[in-house]
Parts: sequence; C-alpha cells; structure tokens
Amino acid sequence: MCEANAYLIEDLPEGPQEKLIMEAVDTVEPTEDGISLMNIFGEQKFLKARIHSLSLVDHKVFLKTEGS
Amino acid sequence: MCEANAYLIEDLPEGPQEKLIMEAVDTVEPTEDGISLMNIFGEQKFLKARIHSLSLVDHKVFLKTEGS
Repeated sequence: MCEANAYLIEDLPEGPQEKLIMEAVDTVEPTEDGISLMNIFGEQKFLKARIHSLSLVDHKVFLKTEGS
Repeated sequence: MCEANAYLIEDLPEGPQEKLIMEAVDTVEPTEDGISLMNIFGEQKFLKARIHSLSLVDHKVFLKTEGS
C-alpha cells in the first residue's frame, strides 16, 4: 500500500516542527476553507491548511496552515 | 516503491482533463513561482502550478496551474 503520513509544518520560534496529523493517508482534497484528509481506514479529518510538499518514497505529505 | 504519477488538471470547455506531467514522482517542493517535481530517476521538472489533491493508493498527484 502506498499511503503516507501527513505532517503539519509549524513555524515555531525555535524553528520549523513537523506535527503528525494523520497516518495512512489515502486522499487529500481541497474544501471550501482548507483540505479534507481520508485515510485507508475511512477516517476523515478537516484542516484549515494546504498541501505544502510531498516526499512520497518517504511516505510523507507536508501541510501548512493557510498564510504561513 | 511508493512514487506516484503527477497529472495537471486542465479545465477545458468540454470538461476537466488530466494531463500526465511526470511518472514515478518522489518529491514535490514549492519554488518561488510554482513547484519543482523530482522523480525516482533524479529527473526534475518545474511547473507554474500548485498541488491540488492526492490519491495515494491510486499513485496519483493532481496539480493545477496557479489561479485555476
């Protein structure tokens, strides 16, 4: 299976940090004010964020909050 | 390997179409005016686009041109 883990990149004063948001993500779709994530177990999460970057061989999807 | 194929979604008068941009994509990173794609063979492409959505179990990354 080729799902990935989704991380939110947070720009903290001590530097950017990656916070795990969801494991085994299958789809990421834009919504009216952010994105919707669905994993291979059918769990869904909504986040006011956008897709920042991908590292698929590492199974990583990076998200950022809008505006950052 | 968990790379994906990157498709550009084009909104044509007859409906949205998916145009294959790159196969076996590993990383997608933002650049100053778009994105940079790198595949598992080390080939790199720059595109004035953003990541629109993901369907990872289907090995698909969807891109859209800025503004569309």
